Amino acid sequence: MIALQLTTEGRLKHFLTVEGLSRNLLTEILDTAESFVGGPGQPIKKVPLLRGKTIVNLFFENSTRTRTTFELAAKRLSADVLNMSIATSSTAKGESLLDTIRNLEAMFVDMFVVRHNISGSAHFIAQHTAPHISVINAGDGQHAHPTQAMLDMFTIRQIKPDFAKLRVAIIGDILHSRVARSQIQALNTLGAAEVRVIAPKTLLPTHVESLGVSVCHSLTEGLKDIDVIIMLRLQKERMASALLPSEAEYFKCFGLTESKLKIAKTDAIVMHPGPINRGVEIESSVADGPQSVILRQVSNGIAVRMAILSMAMQPQGGG
Amino acid sequence: MIALQLTTEGRLKHFLTVEGLSRNLLTEILDTAESFVGGPGQPIKKVPLLRGKTIVNLFFENSTRTRTTFELAAKRLSADVLNMSIATSSTAKGESLLDTIRNLEAMFVDMFVVRHNISGSAHFIAQHTAPHISVINAGDGQHAHPTQAMLDMFTIRQIKPDFAKLRVAIIGDILHSRVARSQIQALNTLGAAEVRVIAPKTLLPTHVESLGVSVCHSLTEGLKDIDVIIMLRLQKERMASALLPSEAEYFKCFGLTESKLKIAKTDAIVMHPGPINRGVEIESSVADGPQSVILRQVSNGIAVRMAILSMAMQPQGGG
Amino acid sequence: MIALQLTTEGRLKHFLTVEGLSRNLLTEILDTAESFVGGPGQPIKKVPLLRGKTIVNLFFENSTRTRTTFELAAKRLSADVLNMSIATSSTAKGESLLDTIRNLEAMFVDMFVVRHNISGSAHFIAQHTAPHISVINAGDGQHAHPTQAMLDMFTIRQIKPDFAKLRVAIIGDILHSRVARSQIQALNTLGAAEVRVIAPKTLLPTHVESLGVSVCHSLTEGLKDIDVIIMLRLQKERMASALLPSEAEYFKCFGLTESKLKIAKTDAIVMHPGPINRGVEIESSVADGPQSVILRQVSNGIAVRMAILSMAMQPQGGG
Repeated sequence: MIALQLTTEGRLKHFLTVEGLSRNLLTEILDTAESFVGGPGQPIKKVPLLRGKTIVNLFFENSTRTRTTFELAAKRLSADVLNMSIATSSTAKGESLLDTIRNLEAMFVDMFVVRHNISGSAHFIAQHTAPHISVINAGDGQHAHPTQAMLDMFTIRQIKPDFAKLRVAIIGDILHSRVARSQIQALNTLGAAEVRVIAPKTLLPTHVESLGVSVCHSLTEGLKDIDVIIMLRLQKERMASALLPSEAEYFKCFGLTESKLKIAKTDAIVMHPGPINRGVEIESSVADGPQSVILRQVSNGIAVRMAILSMAMQPQGGG
Repeated sequence: MIALQLTTEGRLKHFLTVEGLSRNLLTEILDTAESFVGGPGQPIKKVPLLRGKTIVNLFFENSTRTRTTFELAAKRLSADVLNMSIATSSTAKGESLLDTIRNLEAMFVDMFVVRHNISGSAHFIAQHTAPHISVINAGDGQHAHPTQAMLDMFTIRQIKPDFAKLRVAIIGDILHSRVARSQIQALNTLGAAEVRVIAPKTLLPTHVESLGVSVCHSLTEGLKDIDVIIMLRLQKERMASALLPSEAEYFKCFGLTESKLKIAKTDAIVMHPGPINRGVEIESSVADGPQSVILRQVSNGIAVRMAILSMAMQPQGGG
Repeated sequence: MIALQLTTEGRLKHFLTVEGLSRNLLTEILDTAESFVGGPGQPIKKVPLLRGKTIVNLFFENSTRTRTTFELAAKRLSADVLNMSIATSSTAKGESLLDTIRNLEAMFVDMFVVRHNISGSAHFIAQHTAPHISVINAGDGQHAHPTQAMLDMFTIRQIKPDFAKLRVAIIGDILHSRVARSQIQALNTLGAAEVRVIAPKTLLPTHVESLGVSVCHSLTEGLKDIDVIIMLRLQKERMASALLPSEAEYFKCFGLTESKLKIAKTDAIVMHPGPINRGVEIESSVADGPQSVILRQVSNGIAVRMAILSMAMQPQGGG
C-alpha cells in the first residue's frame, strides 16, 4: 500500500489512502495547499503548473460536488479535464474496467481521479495502470476518501494549528463511512490528542478501538472537552436496513443541536463533509451558526486538491 | 427589483428582468454587444475580458440552445465554464437550492447563469448569494427571459435603428410566455411607437393592456402597419389543457403564412425565439424566407450575452 | 460524393467517406498524422493550429470512446469543443435535424463531428450546411467510419510500410460493419495486395466481391499468408436476430485464438476497433499478446483525427 503510493524517492505518486503515509508527507500536502490559498476571502489564482496535462475524472458513482471541486482544481492548475461518467458509457457495451483504463492510457492521459462504489477500485487501477499515470482516490466504497480527510485537516489546522492539543469527535455512521476511516487515520498520523467516535452500536465497526479511537455511545457525554466536532452524513437508506429506528429518533439521540453544542468547548468548531441533512444529523442553526466551518471546508477542498494533483504529477526523476 | 439589479453607482450587477431598467442601460447593453460583433458574416473574436473567472451554467430546466449560447459567450470572453444540470445532480440527495448555492459560492465561482421552471428563482438566488457574485436570468418559469428580449432588441435595431418609428406585433401564447413579457418591457422602455399583442382570448393574461400594449384577436387585422412581427413558440402541451382546439385550427387562425405576411408593411421583419414549430405557428417558407431574421437572432444571442456577462462582471468599485 | 468532400483546389473540405478519395490524399492524411506523433511512447504536444475555432461534437448515437478521442484531438489543436448529445436535447422539442444545424451555424461554429445511427447523415449535413463549415463523419449507420479506417491504415503503415506487399484479413460481421466498409476502401486505394473477408455467409453482404475483396468462410483456411488481421466487434444483438447461433458457436468458428493465429504469417499483427468482446470474437491472450496492436490503434486515433480536423479546417482559398 505505502510502496504503491510513493516513488522510490518517497514522493507522492498516487493518492489512494491516508493509511501508512508519514506525518511529514501529510504536512507537505497541507503546506502546498497553503501556497494556493489567496488572502482571506480571496479566490484562488490560476497557475500554469499542469498546462498541457490531461486529467480524467473517472466517476463510476455520481457526485456533483466532488467532481466539481476536482474539475475546478484541475482548471486552476491549467490542466485539460475530461469528465467521464461511466454508468452511462461504454461499460454498457460490456467493456471491463481494465479495458477502459487501457484505452484511456492509450489516449495519453496523465491522471485518473477515480470515484467508485466498490472498495479498493482506486488501488486496483493504480496497480494496473501505466507507470507514468497517477491515480487519485475520490472515494471508493466504504474504504477511503483521502482528499476529503485532507481538506478537513487543512480546515482544522487553519483554526487550531496544534493537533497535539486537539480532542476531535466524529459523530454518526462510522461503520459505513469512508470519510470517517480516512479522517481517523489522518488525525492519528498528525498526532491529535484524542479521536473519539460517537455513534450507536449498530453504526460502529467491531473492534473499532483498534483504529486508534476512543468510543462513546452518547452524544451528551461524548462532546465533553471536544475541540473539533465532525458530523457525518446519515445515509437515509440505512433506515430501511433496520440499523436505525427513524430519522426523528436519530436526531433526538445523535443530532447536533445548539444546546448539545454547548457541551463541547466554547471555541469548538463544527464540520460536515456535506451534503447536509438538515434536521437529521444537524440542526440548521448549528450548520449555519458561528462555530460552523462547513463552507470553509468546501473552499479549502479546491486548494487541497490542487496540492494533491500537482504533487502527484511532479516528475518522478526529481530529487 | 431595480435596486437588486444595480450597484450603488447604477451599474449592472445582476440581470434578472428588463422591468425597471432605464433606456440608457438597455442602450448600453446594445452598444456593448455591437462592439463584439465582427463584420457582416464574420465570427466573433475571442477576447480576454473574463480570463480567470468561473461562470456556472445552473440549469434546473433543460435547454440545449440557451445553455450553448451562454457557454459560447463565456468561452469567447475567455471565462471557465461549469455546466451543472441540476435535475440529475445532488438535489437527488435532498440538498436544498440554497445549500447548492452556498456550496458553489464556497468554490470561488463568479457568476450564476440560472434557468429554472419556477418564476422568481433567479431573483431568489440573487437576493441570497454572496456580494461578489452576479446572477443572470436565463429564463424563470413564466416570468422573464431578459437576455432573449435583449437579443431581439439588438436584432431589431440592426435593421430598423429608430424604435420610435416602430410598430411591433407579438403573436401567440402571451399568457404563458416569459419571452413576451420581457420583450414588451424592453420595447416600451426603448420607446417603440406601438406594441401590439395578437392572440386568442384564452392565451392572453387578464388586464393585458396594463402591460402597455394594444390588443387584437385577429391576425389579419392585427398585422396592418406592422414593422416587426415576433412569433412566439406554441407549447404543444397547451392543447391538452383545452386552451386551444387543435394545431390545425391554431395555424389557420394565428399561423404566419406568406399571404398573411403581405398584410404587414412590405419591409417588415419576422422574428421567433426558436425552436420553431413549422406548420403550427409559422409556415416554413416564411421562417426560411427573405423577411425572416430568425437565425440572425441566434447569432446575435452570443454578442448580446457577451455584453451582459461582461458588464455584470465589471468591478463594482469603478466609476 | 468526391466533389462534396474536396474544395475546387482538391483539398479536403469534409471527411465523410474514404470512397473515391485518391491515394495521394489518404497518404497526405497519414503523413500529417505522422507529424503530430511524438517519439515512441511520447504523448502528443499541444499545438495552436485551431486556436479560436469551435468544434461541435454532434453525437446522435452514444460513443464515449470515439467522442473522447475527437475531444482530445480538438483540445490538442487548441480548439474550443462543444459536446452535444442530441438524444437528450432539443430534438425532444421536435426540432428537425436541419433546424439544429442552422442554429449551430448561426452560433459561428466551425466544424461538426457527426455520429448518427442513420446511414448518410453526415453527407446530408455536409450538403446542407454553410460553406465555411466542415463536417467530419464519426460513424453513420452501417455506411462508413472513415476516421477509424484511417487510424487503422496509419497503424498498419507504422509497422508494415509497404501496402503493396500486404494481405489483410477482415474477420466478422462484414454485413453490418461501417468500419469494415471504410477499411476495405482504404486498403484498396492504398494498394494492398489482397483484402480478404472471412465471415459466415449470414454476415456477408450479397455480391461482397464487388467491393474488391476475396471471400472465405473458414477462419482456419482464411488466415493463410495473412500479414494483417482485423477483427470486427460482434454486436451481440445479432444473436437475437437469428443471424448467429450462439456466442460459443461463433467463437469456435470465427474467434481468434492463439492456435488459429499461428496459421497467419509469424509476424502478422492483430487489430480490433474496440471495444473488445473477450472470448467472443477474440481470445484474451491474443488481444493482450505481442502481436496485438489494439491499444496502439487507440493512441494513433488522436494523431490521425488531429490530422483530419486540421486539414479540413485549412483556409479554402489556399493553393
